Amino acid sequence: MKKAVVLLSGGLDSSTVLYHAIKLGFSCLCLIFDYGQRHRKETENAEKIARLSQSEYKILKLELPSSSALTSLKLNVPEGRENRKGIPVTYVPGRNTLFLAYALSWAEGIGAERVFIGANAIDYSGYPDCRPGYYRLWSSLIASGTKAGAEGRLIKIETPLILLSKAGIVKLAIRLKVPLRHTWSCYRGGKRPCGRCDSCVLRQKGFKEAGIPDPAL
Amino acid sequence: MKKAVVLLSGGLDSSTVLYHAIKLGFSCLCLIFDYGQRHRKETENAEKIARLSQSEYKILKLELPSSSALTSLKLNVPEGRENRKGIPVTYVPGRNTLFLAYALSWAEGIGAERVFIGANAIDYSGYPDCRPGYYRLWSSLIASGTKAGAEGRLIKIETPLILLSKAGIVKLAIRLKVPLRHTWSCYRGGKRPCGRCDSCVLRQKGFKEAGIPDPAL
Repeated sequence: MKKAVVLLSGGLDSSTVLYHAIKLGFSCLCLIFDYGQRHRKETENAEKIARLSQSEYKILKLELPSSSALTSLKLNVPEGRENRKGIPVTYVPGRNTLFLAYALSWAEGIGAERVFIGANAIDYSGYPDCRPGYYRLWSSLIASGTKAGAEGRLIKIETPLILLSKAGIVKLAIRLKVPLRHTWSCYRGGKRPCGRCDSCVLRQKGFKEAGIPDPAL
Repeated sequence: MKKAVVLLSGGLDSSTVLYHAIKLGFSCLCLIFDYGQRHRKETENAEKIARLSQSEYKILKLELPSSSALTSLKLNVPEGRENRKGIPVTYVPGRNTLFLAYALSWAEGIGAERVFIGANAIDYSGYPDCRPGYYRLWSSLIASGTKAGAEGRLIKIETPLILLSKAGIVKLAIRLKVPLRHTWSCYRGGKRPCGRCDSCVLRQKGFKEAGIPDPAL
């Protein structure tokens, strides 16, 4: 059975990507990162999703700098999306680069031919490591810097959601029967989604535009 | 004071790079990786070197696949360099990509403008992630995928040893007063260097060609 590594946060996007990869016939190893994020409870949701999908998973700890509002309690997670210029304070330095590098190592190690990531560049938070051009560069890096690449077995990074709207992702998730009730998107680590952070606002927008109630609320 | 992140293994090359970066006037944060390597004692040497150089350091744990002879006790570390075709079994999948991604995250988080790595493409083990082309790709990736890049503050990856011979590195290390006695290069985790693995053979070659005895022996 062909293998893939899936970066799984337990949110709407990455959970949808996991079910998409399974639908395509991949046996998936999910990598779940505990990087000191204030919404660390997302790792429990990610575990739950991985188990429900009957996929293997690993929880990997990372020690990241505390310069982001997601990893430092000294910085506030901003509310809403208005008055925003540039890249938000929730940006975690080099996060997707590190996630992908880890995934690449595992993909090469277990002989997987694909790495799936739920990056999206439409209804997204404005992080630079979510845009298509960034992912195209990874192909060259993999070809140049891995044994797999040197031997012509290219590991491909797949970003199936990158050009979908959030509503489009919700509809795809419903079609793929993603257990949406167990997904977690809120940047704050509360008992229930705050409904006001960027991630909550985007998720609500997606469900609203898709005309479907959010089963996690 | 300008800041740099230095990838430090405690071997000849990375220790030389650290002293080189200090000589250039950088205040250095050393990242030391414990990735389950059988020569894990190198992390102790790395700590020692970081302390002797009066640099800050962090030891970061990584969980890597066990498909390499450096991370699996089921595979033997080969002796000598003869009869070698292609990339050796000591290749760790995506290792430098993961090290650099981690360093990039820290560099961006602490506002460092440089990442130093002791990669070498002349007297080297044949790993694909040690060649110049691979490092050139990183510039594009950093420009595209980081906040620093988006704001025009490029973090540069420096590979000052990449085109030096091992003898050239030894001579540079002597000039920079690197405490070579405390560096560790052997792939095996013994009490003393085995003298037969690829890394030992390369180191011996360097000292021999430089006409200097190895103070670690």
